[in-house]
Amino acid sequence: MSEPSELAVRAEKLDAADELAAKRSEFILNDVVYLDGNSLGALPAAVPGRMEDVVRRQWGSLRIRSWDESGWWTAPERIGDRIAPLVGAAPGQIVVGDSTSVDVFKALVAAVRMARETDAGRDEIVVDATTFPTDGYIAGSAARMTGCTLRPVAPAEVPGVLSGRTAAVLLNHVDYRTGRLHDLPALTAAVHAAGAVAVWDLCHSAGALPVGLDEHGVDLAVGCTYKYLNGGPGSPAYLYVRRELQDRFDSPLPGWNSHAEPFGMRSDYEAAPGAVRGRVGTPDILSMLALEAALEVWDGVSIDAVRAKSLALTDFFLECVRAYVPPGTVDSLTPAAHGERGSQIALRCADAGDVMKRLIAAGVVGDFRPPDVLRFGFTPLYVGFGDVERAARVLAEVVA
Amino acid sequence: MSEPSELAVRAEKLDAADELAAKRSEFILNDVVYLDGNSLGALPAAVPGRMEDVVRRQWGSLRIRSWDESGWWTAPERIGDRIAPLVGAAPGQIVVGDSTSVDVFKALVAAVRMARETDAGRDEIVVDATTFPTDGYIAGSAARMTGCTLRPVAPAEVPGVLSGRTAAVLLNHVDYRTGRLHDLPALTAAVHAAGAVAVWDLCHSAGALPVGLDEHGVDLAVGCTYKYLNGGPGSPAYLYVRRELQDRFDSPLPGWNSHAEPFGMRSDYEAAPGAVRGRVGTPDILSMLALEAALEVWDGVSIDAVRAKSLALTDFFLECVRAYVPPGTVDSLTPAAHGERGSQIALRCADAGDVMKRLIAAGVVGDFRPPDVLRFGFTPLYVGFGDVERAARVLAEVVA
Repeated sequence: MSEPSELAVRAEKLDAADELAAKRSEFILNDVVYLDGNSLGALPAAVPGRMEDVVRRQWGSLRIRSWDESGWWTAPERIGDRIAPLVGAAPGQIVVGDSTSVDVFKALVAAVRMARETDAGRDEIVVDATTFPTDGYIAGSAARMTGCTLRPVAPAEVPGVLSGRTAAVLLNHVDYRTGRLHDLPALTAAVHAAGAVAVWDLCHSAGALPVGLDEHGVDLAVGCTYKYLNGGPGSPAYLYVRRELQDRFDSPLPGWNSHAEPFGMRSDYEAAPGAVRGRVGTPDILSMLALEAALEVWDGVSIDAVRAKSLALTDFFLECVRAYVPPGTVDSLTPAAHGERGSQIALRCADAGDVMKRLIAAGVVGDFRPPDVLRFGFTPLYVGFGDVERAARVLAEVVA
Repeated sequence: MSEPSELAVRAEKLDAADELAAKRSEFILNDVVYLDGNSLGALPAAVPGRMEDVVRRQWGSLRIRSWDESGWWTAPERIGDRIAPLVGAAPGQIVVGDSTSVDVFKALVAAVRMARETDAGRDEIVVDATTFPTDGYIAGSAARMTGCTLRPVAPAEVPGVLSGRTAAVLLNHVDYRTGRLHDLPALTAAVHAAGAVAVWDLCHSAGALPVGLDEHGVDLAVGCTYKYLNGGPGSPAYLYVRRELQDRFDSPLPGWNSHAEPFGMRSDYEAAPGAVRGRVGTPDILSMLALEAALEVWDGVSIDAVRAKSLALTDFFLECVRAYVPPGTVDSLTPAAHGERGSQIALRCADAGDVMKRLIAAGVVGDFRPPDVLRFGFTPLYVGFGDVERAARVLAEVVA
């Protein structure tokens, strides 16, 4: 057996000093280095038992009574309140439900309607041109259905295109491909200065770094729960509506769950007060309660500690890659500056699709994003420094 | 012990002759008479084990690989094809996903767009005035966002209000409150004669009686899966788009899952061919695969046999109520004619809310719909004639 490398020794020390290390035991892990938690988070250990109870007792035995007795009916807002501290929101502003795409549609249409209350002439939706595609497609539909023009621009160019015509701006907090962290406070302020409404997509930031929705005056936000929040495959998304805007939130999807009196079975629609107004139809209980169990891993976790470890992990990964991988083989697309980095590293690499297949076969799971990107996500709750060193070492073997 | 009544003896004989009786063993039942399967179906026995596998192995161990290896990605259309024969549809026309409310929105907006392709002046959406409220609320939003007027009318009056202005008509196959079955073939033909698009809500009919979507030329349909299809609380809804109309289905929710090349990550939207065009965002896998396991109870079941038993159950219930409950105490809102009856009986009753509470306490579960309706649903796969006789007997005791 060869001498452990200096980096392997460093990894061991970093793991020993990691205040989040104990959290690993709250996940079901195996011998794979799992760096794809930015696509699908690992399974929290609390989930299987909870699902067994939800299926067998709540559904199988209590059946319809569970809508009250097991708290099914109020799950969207209760779980929203569990997510709230992770994104810097006071309670009562988040509901869980539907997919991210559907929540983007609600948020953008409502944003345009809000902007037009004071200035009916606003007719542009500005969208991050580098966004995960679904946001752009849905923004296109929201624009079409509200009589707006869609204007895709790079996030850095947003301040320059804002005008009295801008109704709403949809931006990603962290770019899904490059891992670039955008300046949410400054961009939100610029949107507000133009009199427009700011909608943020938090899919790639929530659970990995502080968001500060309340602090930075964000109007509306959406996010998925299956990445850094570990809610399970396709688990429901969430919608944040800033408290001061809730009375003005005019949903394009006013389903019965958002009614002021849902069981009154009234033919006239009256929107409920509060975040509940963002609900639509009957909530997807099995997925939602799996998410609720998954969120228990956040008990006692400080999001600042998560951010500190995330940066340490990505720094260490870049260092190990530099040490192990021959120069010129890979090239990081992710900004080096901490203030511009999310919790993933994107490496441009020749034959990236094939390289990722070989990495996965060798027990290091990331993902491939066309045309040439290897994407590695670092979930601070269950990824350790030893994993990081191993991943870089295996990458070097694979590209050799 | 008193002599069993003549009706109890009849119930025993009917159960002994019931060709669907063996299906009961495929559900987790208890000593409650469960007549609320039209709200939340009972738990199929196959579900708990499947969920355990989905959570522990597919998510917990295979993780991201399950999108391919466990068939997660194709679940919406695969499960749609499993529902298809139950509603008289050939494969390739149904996708599962989102809530009924969201699917109603997709269907109605797409219907208006289709109608306007040949006649841009069509500007009315006709909706069943007695509908479950969410359909009306969503139809109102679809009308507002497409520049239409919403026209609520009783289903029987629909043919009289159709005109060259009608773009789309949204109707319920079975009324959620009264259990009245509407004439889908005749109403669809009337909508078509006016040049409009017919959208049917199958929530209270699918799994209880033949629907015949293909046969009767229905254009678009939606339904939930947690009633007679037993998919679990808030399980995903489905959307039917008639094959000939799929190329013209222009979704207001064009999420990345409906893209022709979803992993191409292209910024321009190009709709996929086929029913997949009705998908939106990442499908809710846990709920969806619970539904898939739940649908296995339909193996070898003829929907005609289900309909025959359903009518026999509701007939027998009405007979037992007449025999046991003092005249004048309850009054059926559900049509006596088989051709106008779904799979539920709605009884108008003084103090219905309180009566239902006492029924539930006595082990007979139905539900209460304001202001004065006791609603009893009969799921032929697990409700027996002995249950029916007992329910009527307990009702007589409770109202006495």
